[in-house]
Amino acid sequence: MKPNVYLEKRSLSEALKLLFEAFNFEASAGTEEIRSAQSANRITALPVFARISSPNYNAAAMDGIAVRSRDTEGATEASPKRLSLNDDFVFINTGNPLPAGRDAVIMIEDVSRVDDRIIEIIRAAVPYQHVRAMGEDMVATELVLPTGHTIRPYDIGALLGAGHATVTVRKRPRVLLIPTGDELVPDTMTDLPAGKVYESNSAVIAAMINADGGVAVAHPIVVDDYDSIRLAVSENVGQFDLIVIIAGSSAGTKDYTKSIVETLGKVFVHGIAIMPGKPTILGAVKNKPVVGLPGYPVSAVMTYRTVVRPLIARMQGTRISPDETARVVVLRDIPKLVGNDLFLRVQMAEIDGRLVASPLPRGAGNITTMVKADGIITIDSLSEGLKSGDTATAVLLKKREDIANTIMAVGSHDISLDLLAGRLRTLYPSFWLSSVNVGSLGGIMALKNGECHLAGSHLLDPETGQYNKPALARYLTGMPVSLVTLAHREQGLIVQKGNPSRIGGIADLTRKGIVFVNRQRGSGTRILLDYLLKKLGIEGRQIDGYGREEFTHLLVAAAVKSARADAGLGIRAAARALDLDFIPIEHEQYDLIIPAKYRAEERISALIETIRDERFKDEMRSLGGYDTTETGKEQIIDA
Amino acid sequence: MKPNVYLEKRSLSEALKLLFEAFNFEASAGTEEIRSAQSANRITALPVFARISSPNYNAAAMDGIAVRSRDTEGATEASPKRLSLNDDFVFINTGNPLPAGRDAVIMIEDVSRVDDRIIEIIRAAVPYQHVRAMGEDMVATELVLPTGHTIRPYDIGALLGAGHATVTVRKRPRVLLIPTGDELVPDTMTDLPAGKVYESNSAVIAAMINADGGVAVAHPIVVDDYDSIRLAVSENVGQFDLIVIIAGSSAGTKDYTKSIVETLGKVFVHGIAIMPGKPTILGAVKNKPVVGLPGYPVSAVMTYRTVVRPLIARMQGTRISPDETARVVVLRDIPKLVGNDLFLRVQMAEIDGRLVASPLPRGAGNITTMVKADGIITIDSLSEGLKSGDTATAVLLKKREDIANTIMAVGSHDISLDLLAGRLRTLYPSFWLSSVNVGSLGGIMALKNGECHLAGSHLLDPETGQYNKPALARYLTGMPVSLVTLAHREQGLIVQKGNPSRIGGIADLTRKGIVFVNRQRGSGTRILLDYLLKKLGIEGRQIDGYGREEFTHLLVAAAVKSARADAGLGIRAAARALDLDFIPIEHEQYDLIIPAKYRAEERISALIETIRDERFKDEMRSLGGYDTTETGKEQIIDA
Repeated sequence: MKPNVYLEKRSLSEALKLLFEAFNFEASAGTEEIRSAQSANRITALPVFARISSPNYNAAAMDGIAVRSRDTEGATEASPKRLSLNDDFVFINTGNPLPAGRDAVIMIEDVSRVDDRIIEIIRAAVPYQHVRAMGEDMVATELVLPTGHTIRPYDIGALLGAGHATVTVRKRPRVLLIPTGDELVPDTMTDLPAGKVYESNSAVIAAMINADGGVAVAHPIVVDDYDSIRLAVSENVGQFDLIVIIAGSSAGTKDYTKSIVETLGKVFVHGIAIMPGKPTILGAVKNKPVVGLPGYPVSAVMTYRTVVRPLIARMQGTRISPDETARVVVLRDIPKLVGNDLFLRVQMAEIDGRLVASPLPRGAGNITTMVKADGIITIDSLSEGLKSGDTATAVLLKKREDIANTIMAVGSHDISLDLLAGRLRTLYPSFWLSSVNVGSLGGIMALKNGECHLAGSHLLDPETGQYNKPALARYLTGMPVSLVTLAHREQGLIVQKGNPSRIGGIADLTRKGIVFVNRQRGSGTRILLDYLLKKLGIEGRQIDGYGREEFTHLLVAAAVKSARADAGLGIRAAARALDLDFIPIEHEQYDLIIPAKYRAEERISALIETIRDERFKDEMRSLGGYDTTETGKEQIIDA
Repeated sequence: MKPNVYLEKRSLSEALKLLFEAFNFEASAGTEEIRSAQSANRITALPVFARISSPNYNAAAMDGIAVRSRDTEGATEASPKRLSLNDDFVFINTGNPLPAGRDAVIMIEDVSRVDDRIIEIIRAAVPYQHVRAMGEDMVATELVLPTGHTIRPYDIGALLGAGHATVTVRKRPRVLLIPTGDELVPDTMTDLPAGKVYESNSAVIAAMINADGGVAVAHPIVVDDYDSIRLAVSENVGQFDLIVIIAGSSAGTKDYTKSIVETLGKVFVHGIAIMPGKPTILGAVKNKPVVGLPGYPVSAVMTYRTVVRPLIARMQGTRISPDETARVVVLRDIPKLVGNDLFLRVQMAEIDGRLVASPLPRGAGNITTMVKADGIITIDSLSEGLKSGDTATAVLLKKREDIANTIMAVGSHDISLDLLAGRLRTLYPSFWLSSVNVGSLGGIMALKNGECHLAGSHLLDPETGQYNKPALARYLTGMPVSLVTLAHREQGLIVQKGNPSRIGGIADLTRKGIVFVNRQRGSGTRILLDYLLKKLGIEGRQIDGYGREEFTHLLVAAAVKSARADAGLGIRAAARALDLDFIPIEHEQYDLIIPAKYRAEERISALIETIRDERFKDEMRSLGGYDTTETGKEQIIDA
């Protein structure tokens, strides 16, 4: 067993080149003949030429009667012409072949029945009127579909119309997914044991493989054990076109993928210069490709997108078509270390006619960054990042039109924003509320900067004891806004269940042995804390943990719940959500600041209607600590 | 049985309103709980909130050792610190819970092993370094997915990460498709009887329903018989959420759908002001919606898109998100009668930085217009059409990037263009060749007009006997071009197999009883014919059928094959394709005219390389009548 260290790190394009050169992947999955009727989403393996013409005969294009046009010559309103059944005409329906000797169809609407056998017409028929000529749609031998074409529903109509009851397509590549990890349990286990997580990567990757035309088979979870993983590979490699080992692809003590692939075959890439996704392994066992995917969920998704997806396309003799992209503007600096391509997940919205992108957290463990992402910006490995005001190309993960219907809220975190997003979606299905948590002051700056449509804020002015209005006068001069109250809510200390440290108020935070967890600078809660400390004459450095910052009420509660801290300042709903105790300190007002220029937009009106919806207010109150008396109240402030 | 006439024709929006008001469709399909792992493409029926935090404990973010940070204080390169296994540290892998009492992780790379139990570090650990804090990805109670959300692969990761092994989704609406028609046979019949066609609409519509989240079940073909169709509806309506009767929705004698739905329930719309798609029926039987789709394949597809798709979305408690669209310019007049919305299928390409749309034939029977379409322009019922130079909005049927990679050829028809398109796709999978057949002269005008990248042409100059070059001098002055020879080919008379009319040459076309089929004005073949007639002193009116025009060689051959004509002028390959006889008349040169400004584009170079590919030349020769000696020869003409 060789020492477990990375090979030379490869750029993505080098890695793909090495992979594609190592195998003759082109259409390696083989072909099969299947029913055309069931060929949707499959890929043609041969060009398809029409076997027959469509229509394959001269056919009636209307319901009516089939005639010889010369028999109708001279018919006018003044001197109608009578025709008799079978001798002069026959009834015919749309799609039926024109009987031999007939060369025109008269619409049933233009026929007067005289009796059961005689009809009268008042206009002559032109040869081949209302006749679909043989071959009108396609003539035998014409190309119906080229090779490598992904069959769409209406292509099936063309295949059958061309006389092809079957079609030769690429086989779907069979991919075995081997999830590894001691901490994993299968989703069939109803109660999740402590310290365990559901294995999810195989389901995520399988869904992507199936969408991309492959057939994914998930192996049961394999523990972090060299022999077990090796057996899973060696036993199965014969029956699959591709093996994907999930997790264990890094260089840790329990990362066995590299040495297993080396033992059974060959590793030609370990380490790709992409972030997330660096610890990726590309190799071969028995002339089958083996990919080691990193276990962090976003890394697994990104490596799938960049490496496995093109591989599966090649196996089917096709190429992935380019992603939809859009030019976006970033409105803050996005620094980056040189050395890896960075796949930056961003939320996007259309603001003042510009497509604006806000970066999401980069952590590869945070699958919710994929859920929230509207797009992905790739920043080149050599770049040191983007500057505020730069434009960049984003691959779109949502439809462009859906992004145009997104309301972007940047500012203070409040738990009820989740409920509001959900309720908006129910009441107005075409709109969507995206929230970015940067604190009250950050939200106001984002408004000023044109980064969002509205900002949630609960900024206390220490001088006046007033919420929000003084900040508007200070920071948003010249920008008329609507101030829409979301709620009044309780702020207090979130402490362990049963309050074992017997914390009674802010003053107790200086006690020895008490560890505090703080909110970030610029957040309304931090401003409130600093205001309260000042009143008590306490300085931050007297409090253990004052320097440790979290970005939301729920993350403060989670820090207390997981015993990283004894107390944190936050809203009652957060304490209640995680079943913690709560010591009330203040009542405060939480408003949405909405510039007048956006107020008239349909999506914003929809949002305000949703805030005023009684069911939303009920849901908010049930979170605990919310007073909805003034919820939905709007004040117009012409600063 | 009431008289079979249309009800008052409805606009599309009126029709949808009547439909949606008649039922309480909203989420009518009901809900079911399924495994999250298998929930891709399903729609959430409830908002999903995190059951647990992710991670659900403070977890190692790196492989290494877990320590108490205070035990590491003071470690430097000058004075390393030694720690002993179990007392001071434990080994830990990424994702594992931090043991109680430990508050930091040191990466394995930063650890020197002294012996089996002792390690050395040269840097102190900061509290919570390399630790993924509980809730970093999501905190219990946070919204994971809202109601009405279509689950994507990575959403599955979030569901499982949030502790949801199952998720409540909308049931897939069950749709019964009843194909009707005497002319239909099932695709399981290997040999297609004369006068019959494969039933294809049910497969096309089923594929669309499945893609839109429904479950389609196809009923066996029902003949055009009132009682049989009525039975198919009444027997099955109880087991399905929606019944779709295909064909028989018009007002002909054998169109039974309306009277069947009236007898069993109620018809509230018959006739929608859309083209194709007018003969559509909306009704109800036993409080289930019943849709009568027109039988022409493009009508069926369009009615599905505009009526059935939104219905299926509503049944699942969601809305269809808006289609991707683009602004396009049309470069010819597109007249239209007032009265119906027209769904115009168009081919599209990017030419000189503009997105240009060329209309496809409007016939509702021509499914290949859907296959070829890059987009659909809806022209309002009140409009009289578009004028050359107008811009319009097109719904995209292909990715915008794929359209950008399309080469648009407008001009003369040649059978080998199909082969060329197929071969290009094989050699250069990202490029696609679209051909519009308007004749040689039409192609040159399209070039001049900026409608295409190249034009196929075989224009004989009667004065000089030269092909194409004189026309360039006449029509494209000031536009430097490359003239790339596709082939030399044989033109002649296409006649019935065995030549029963004993046609020997052009002079025989004037014989009594001989019916000719002509090509359209402006086509090279028409110009050749008129040149030959002039030499012989024959006038067009002496030839029966001189006025009947077809647009391609294959359609001329099809007219002969189906006995609509005895002879037509065309290329040998067309006669051979339909197994007809051929009387050679001329050898001619067929060139592609490519303006110099496009010549350098990658897609054009790829096309020319493909023309020069030996396999393409082999394929072309096997069609018959082609001489490839000069195929691929390029002349640069600086007019």
